[in-house]
Amino acid sequence: MTNTEAFLSTAGRQLQESAIRKMGTVIASGRDVISFAPGYPAPETFPWDEFAAIAADLFASREGNVLQYGPTRGYRPLLDVVSGIMQSRGVTMATEQLLVTTGSQQGLDLVARGLVDPGDVILVELPTYVGAISAFRNVQATMVGVPQEADGIDLDALDATCERVRRDGRRVKFLYVVPNFQNPTGLLIGLEKRRRLLEWAERRDVLIVEDDPYRELYFEDSTSEEEVRPIKADDTSDRVVYLSSFSKTLAPGFRVAWIAAPARLSARFEMAKQSEDLLTGSLDQRMIYEACRRGVLERQLPILRRHYAQKRDVMEAALRRELGGDVSWPKPKGGFFLWVTLPARVDAGKMIDRAIREGVVYVTGDAFHVDGSGQNTLRLAFSAPTHDRIDAGVARLAATLRGEQAELGTAAAVASPGRP
Amino acid sequence: MTNTEAFLSTAGRQLQESAIRKMGTVIASGRDVISFAPGYPAPETFPWDEFAAIAADLFASREGNVLQYGPTRGYRPLLDVVSGIMQSRGVTMATEQLLVTTGSQQGLDLVARGLVDPGDVILVELPTYVGAISAFRNVQATMVGVPQEADGIDLDALDATCERVRRDGRRVKFLYVVPNFQNPTGLLIGLEKRRRLLEWAERRDVLIVEDDPYRELYFEDSTSEEEVRPIKADDTSDRVVYLSSFSKTLAPGFRVAWIAAPARLSARFEMAKQSEDLLTGSLDQRMIYEACRRGVLERQLPILRRHYAQKRDVMEAALRRELGGDVSWPKPKGGFFLWVTLPARVDAGKMIDRAIREGVVYVTGDAFHVDGSGQNTLRLAFSAPTHDRIDAGVARLAATLRGEQAELGTAAAVASPGRP
Repeated sequence: MTNTEAFLSTAGRQLQESAIRKMGTVIASGRDVISFAPGYPAPETFPWDEFAAIAADLFASREGNVLQYGPTRGYRPLLDVVSGIMQSRGVTMATEQLLVTTGSQQGLDLVARGLVDPGDVILVELPTYVGAISAFRNVQATMVGVPQEADGIDLDALDATCERVRRDGRRVKFLYVVPNFQNPTGLLIGLEKRRRLLEWAERRDVLIVEDDPYRELYFEDSTSEEEVRPIKADDTSDRVVYLSSFSKTLAPGFRVAWIAAPARLSARFEMAKQSEDLLTGSLDQRMIYEACRRGVLERQLPILRRHYAQKRDVMEAALRRELGGDVSWPKPKGGFFLWVTLPARVDAGKMIDRAIREGVVYVTGDAFHVDGSGQNTLRLAFSAPTHDRIDAGVARLAATLRGEQAELGTAAAVASPGRP
Repeated sequence: MTNTEAFLSTAGRQLQESAIRKMGTVIASGRDVISFAPGYPAPETFPWDEFAAIAADLFASREGNVLQYGPTRGYRPLLDVVSGIMQSRGVTMATEQLLVTTGSQQGLDLVARGLVDPGDVILVELPTYVGAISAFRNVQATMVGVPQEADGIDLDALDATCERVRRDGRRVKFLYVVPNFQNPTGLLIGLEKRRRLLEWAERRDVLIVEDDPYRELYFEDSTSEEEVRPIKADDTSDRVVYLSSFSKTLAPGFRVAWIAAPARLSARFEMAKQSEDLLTGSLDQRMIYEACRRGVLERQLPILRRHYAQKRDVMEAALRRELGGDVSWPKPKGGFFLWVTLPARVDAGKMIDRAIREGVVYVTGDAFHVDGSGQNTLRLAFSAPTHDRIDAGVARLAATLRGEQAELGTAAAVASPGRP
């Protein structure tokens, strides 16, 4: 047989499977495993009847374009809708600065391909979104991590890191940030810090790639709409490439998201998309457009905010009940995720087989760290499971941690038998 | 303002807009232009009622996975359907050799990223599909063209080209071919030549990328199903990466296609897809799956074969009537395209503005030639326009050519006033 691997490109040889997707395979195995791994929206919130009515109307129209090829840039009325959404977020964008993408993952991929040569440096938060790590790694970027504080990325560390990288003779292309309810930590970058980030980018001549899938899902008990103002809203000098999506607010199966970028970069990303998939699905774009036009999105948002805030509450209560004192986490003010720090000597990666045996999965924290750290952290997604499943899953997680600690205790006792 | 272009990658700077997509922009301008440019399926053939019924059932099911994230590899029952389709084409494939892609364009992109390093050589037909040129160019491949004969690629020229490229010290990664009703020429590679291509690939240790979107659209007056047997069907040594699609048989707006490849390559392409768009749209995959399961695809095929054969007939009759003797073309035995050779001194690219003024567009032949040739050729897609529009469009094309020739004649007369 042909040695097919001899034909792989450098990029092809270096491809790695995403940690989250691997977990997906575990879940698909069909056992009763409660999954806190992937950040899936809650399917019980999908507006089924509204989607059914929209689809019925679209097919009844027999309008060829519903199922035909269309412009790479996107369905024009949808671009206008996206422009309106950006306006409501404080960002004025002409449609030639917008590009519909096949999910935000494609947005990340287009940005990476358009901007990054092998060896270029991308600055990222520690920890950061694993899908971005995957897209950036596949263009052979070097990612350098910057620690976060309670109000987001540490600006002093950011500047010091940038300067250190440059002293090493490397090119910094951009800073990648998820300012709202960051994946995986759930943290929110403070407004003052957003302004200072822009000043920093200007001073250091670096772009900012702002990934904003969760912004509509702020929890009203702790966060106001003002606090999720995009960095892009104050970008007066074309420094910021902004990505957002309908996946978390309408449904991810449609694969409709967008990039808002300086016009000359948008044009490049559009050309890259031409060769990547020609266009985002026409029916998907029409479904999303109609859901916006008919007010479905608008009606969903307050429902979703309450839905996910409640699930956050259920998970926090379960964690306090089952694991109080043993683990810690920053309270999520929005989004899908809760970021857990385990006792120092517990390794979430080593514990995962035990967790699967107990019937629960999470994503190990090291997957989100580009510096190889994070062994005693893990990400729990509270978005998809029901309240009962969250309770049961946290109980299984607690049993997992107790089992792991007991074994570590025994191991420690064996290792030092002389100690009392 | 930021000099955003200073941030582009090498690939980002080299991106080029596809010739077909440019034509799409002309068409979208809203004037009465009859388009023979993009290879759009005929929307009047779309099975609207069947799609409406499928969508109604899917939304009524309220099954979360219809709108949820799903496996990158594809919806499992759809993979089984694709495996059955491959079987019916003479190819036995395990599902781990299959990957659902977001249109065949993504398939081409994944293959390019997975296999090609900058400067690697891809052998292609002269002329070849412009979307493949775009995907290959964007990974900075060097494309080298091989002429075609009436029964497809010239094997002697292929071998000589391959050896010449290797003598220059360059790596040949694969041969890209469209054996069935090639885009743009409409040519069919003969069965004997397909076998010899495989032997050649084995002897020269090269992969074959076989792109097969049109195979179901053979015209029964001239072509049998046996004649469209994939090269992949006789690939006993993992030499062939095969791509096909539902875009031309169900509808392109769904963006559902597939790659069938040696398992170890499929695994790599899947990882590349993870970082490229995570998954192909869930609803799209379910719609296509149901259309296959309910027999819609099976019922469509004979309808489509007749539909496009008739349009081919209408276009050929119009060309003979309006332009007989001035232009020539190989008779299409299937597919969407008719490949026209103009009188030697007429340049299809220089003529395009006149054509647009006359109200007709085509794709200039040079866009399909990687060697800079093809100036006196053009591609006409007969798939989308109605019979009346085909007639009217060819009349406009004839007026265009007469105008161009008159001007060239005047120019020639002015240039050589002494000649009689």
